[in-house]
Amino acid sequence: MMRVLMFPQAVAWEANKPLVTETIRVDPPKEGEVRLKVVANALCHTDGKSLNKLGVHVERDKTRTSLPRCSSAQCVSPPPVYTLSGQDPEGLFPCILGHEAGAMVESVGPGVTSVQPGMYVIPCYTPQCKDAACIFCQSPKTNLCPKIRATQGRGVMPDGTSRFSTLDGKPIYHFMGCSTFAEYTVVAEISCAVVSEKAPLDKVCLFGCGVSTGLGAVLKTCAVEEGASVAVFGLGAVGLAVVQAAKIRKARRIFAVDTNPKKFEMAVQLGATDCLNPNDIPDKPIQQVIVEATTWGVDYSFDATGNVEVMRAALECAHRGWGVSCVIGVAASGKLIQTRPFQLITGRSWKGTAFGGWKSRTDVPDLVDQYMDGKLPIDHYVTHSFEGVSAINDAIHALHEGDCLRAVVSYFKQ
Amino acid sequence: MMRVLMFPQAVAWEANKPLVTETIRVDPPKEGEVRLKVVANALCHTDGKSLNKLGVHVERDKTRTSLPRCSSAQCVSPPPVYTLSGQDPEGLFPCILGHEAGAMVESVGPGVTSVQPGMYVIPCYTPQCKDAACIFCQSPKTNLCPKIRATQGRGVMPDGTSRFSTLDGKPIYHFMGCSTFAEYTVVAEISCAVVSEKAPLDKVCLFGCGVSTGLGAVLKTCAVEEGASVAVFGLGAVGLAVVQAAKIRKARRIFAVDTNPKKFEMAVQLGATDCLNPNDIPDKPIQQVIVEATTWGVDYSFDATGNVEVMRAALECAHRGWGVSCVIGVAASGKLIQTRPFQLITGRSWKGTAFGGWKSRTDVPDLVDQYMDGKLPIDHYVTHSFEGVSAINDAIHALHEGDCLRAVVSYFKQ
Ligand SMILES: [Zn+2]
Ligand SMILES: [Zn+2]
Ligand SMILES: [Zn+2]
Ligand SMILES: [Zn+2]
Repeated sequence: MMRVLMFPQAVAWEANKPLVTETIRVDPPKEGEVRLKVVANALCHTDGKSLNKLGVHVERDKTRTSLPRCSSAQCVSPPPVYTLSGQDPEGLFPCILGHEAGAMVESVGPGVTSVQPGMYVIPCYTPQCKDAACIFCQSPKTNLCPKIRATQGRGVMPDGTSRFSTLDGKPIYHFMGCSTFAEYTVVAEISCAVVSEKAPLDKVCLFGCGVSTGLGAVLKTCAVEEGASVAVFGLGAVGLAVVQAAKIRKARRIFAVDTNPKKFEMAVQLGATDCLNPNDIPDKPIQQVIVEATTWGVDYSFDATGNVEVMRAALECAHRGWGVSCVIGVAASGKLIQTRPFQLITGRSWKGTAFGGWKSRTDVPDLVDQYMDGKLPIDHYVTHSFEGVSAINDAIHALHEGDCLRAVVSYFKQ
Repeated sequence: MMRVLMFPQAVAWEANKPLVTETIRVDPPKEGEVRLKVVANALCHTDGKSLNKLGVHVERDKTRTSLPRCSSAQCVSPPPVYTLSGQDPEGLFPCILGHEAGAMVESVGPGVTSVQPGMYVIPCYTPQCKDAACIFCQSPKTNLCPKIRATQGRGVMPDGTSRFSTLDGKPIYHFMGCSTFAEYTVVAEISCAVVSEKAPLDKVCLFGCGVSTGLGAVLKTCAVEEGASVAVFGLGAVGLAVVQAAKIRKARRIFAVDTNPKKFEMAVQLGATDCLNPNDIPDKPIQQVIVEATTWGVDYSFDATGNVEVMRAALECAHRGWGVSCVIGVAASGKLIQTRPFQLITGRSWKGTAFGGWKSRTDVPDLVDQYMDGKLPIDHYVTHSFEGVSAINDAIHALHEGDCLRAVVSYFKQ
């Protein structure tokens, strides 16, 4: 019988309060589960904004049945029927947040075959069950495996219970199937992408969320081709990863749009050819500026802001006849995207991406290998570093000062 | 020197008035132009609705710079920049309406090489210039050749003038590059699809608009594959053509949705497997009904209603992970489509089609050949027939009585 681990965890006790660090119980992994020692966890600026606004890493969506979710990434939990029915349970607290981490397998539950203690993994909020009966895992068109969606959305493990509890026995909810604001966590085996055992976890943890999402939007979801023209709105880590990937694909022209001109330097370093600040052109919609600069619009456009007005601008600057616009950012609760249907009739397509379309267990190890081979540098996204799980609040504070792309908190020496 | 033809034409003198039939002048074709003897012209129910509402075949869109346009088809005239700038000249009258016809070449202007007098053609409001410098004609991704878009949108021929005038010399505007509510008309050579000289023009005229649009949405724009599931909203000729094309592609399941259950008989004959009347299920959104019936939604959905709320329903019943929803119907002036971006993030794509994506001069002749070979029956769409150009008003009247798919007015014996 495995021992019960009790370690400091960063727990969100309720919305609108700072995180508290305290000692809780982390039960052993059950069947099909894996207990991880979280070595490093990254926070993004969007995390920071959410945390700033709500006190914790939370954004509750009034139209969904789900736990609080990352606002920089995509929670794939609510099925369309739930969405339509308008069910709206309250967010569940207390919970352990965090979802962009590098970890080491500490122990495995019965039936686990794909990972062993000591392996390095990146826990992924989009799992990949690989079952022959899973039409999503079997399809090359999507990465949205729904295998553990329902329980992940309810903040529990696939058997319906939590592995986290307070020392006096009160259960603590999981978050996005990851809960990596913790020194130890338990996740499903199918959420574990096994990566190179040489990988620096305080860097490759970035592949657990936003950087992968931005890269995949270009490389996978839209499959941008050589010579294409691209526009990206929002130059946080996700948007910059779009620029980086467009450059990898040899895009001919890359428009980088942000209202903060401080972002332009890195955008240009990564490959942007045209930087636009909408505030510099107050009398013209930004989509019109891009259409005029390109005659007919760009072949591919990406929203990495989560602002629905910007999503519309991104669609409307896409090329007449074949332009594709991809929504990456997650909008605020209840917000709707809109446009004139004429935009679609004249050949634009509107799509979206979740985790960049990557199949987590298959593709994330490849991304890490490309990083290790020097083909896919990502160190430039790590602008701030901290040590110890209790430094999460410090990291959040740093994010509020701006100019931060990713703040990485290392819990343990690797 | 060619003679000037003076023949009865159905002219729309102004909005909100019935068409008047009178004798006008049709000038000879200039360079790159073709004068056509219009043998037969089809009217659709949507035409009828527009005519009913506005008195003529007109729908003016306050946000566009264009002539009145067909509300069943797609006017491809306004460039994005115009759209964005909000220019809004008044609709131009008098004009000669009509855009779904079969015709015979009467004479050609200088430099015309692809058609000769006596050839059968279908005038197409989406031209195909085939120029090496036309990125749209050269791309396999689109049919939206912009070569004569600007002048077509202003109701004149490419040289900026009209070939129509009253007997006392007042110019009359062209419409959608066709103006086939007329015994004789002049169109651009690049608007002429040459079809089989054995084709019955009072049938294949249908390939000039709605039927081609519905077929192409499935066969070309979405390239629906064998075994796919499909839903179509609106069972006029366009929607029924979607059903027919889905059946041709061996779709596994075809949902046909309409609030008029009289439409279901023909839908089933053409291949629909499930007919749904939203009025029968008042307590549930129709998209939820389809999602529940299919577990995850349909692989492809099509709006053939022009109603923006229905367009949203069509998107939201598309399959999680890879569902594609295609807008075919043209919305009323100023209307916006909207949805939650979550619908795109979870793998749905929203696109549209104009003239079914067919490259007019290349593809329409093929459609006619398939019809002639018995592989693509379309006679069932012709529910009403009339004779003589002055019968257009009678045809419009018939359309108002409902149950009409296409009313064909034959101007001449073939
Ligand atoms: Zn995230
Ligand atoms: Zn799966
Ligand atoms: Zn039409
Ligand atoms: Zn062209």
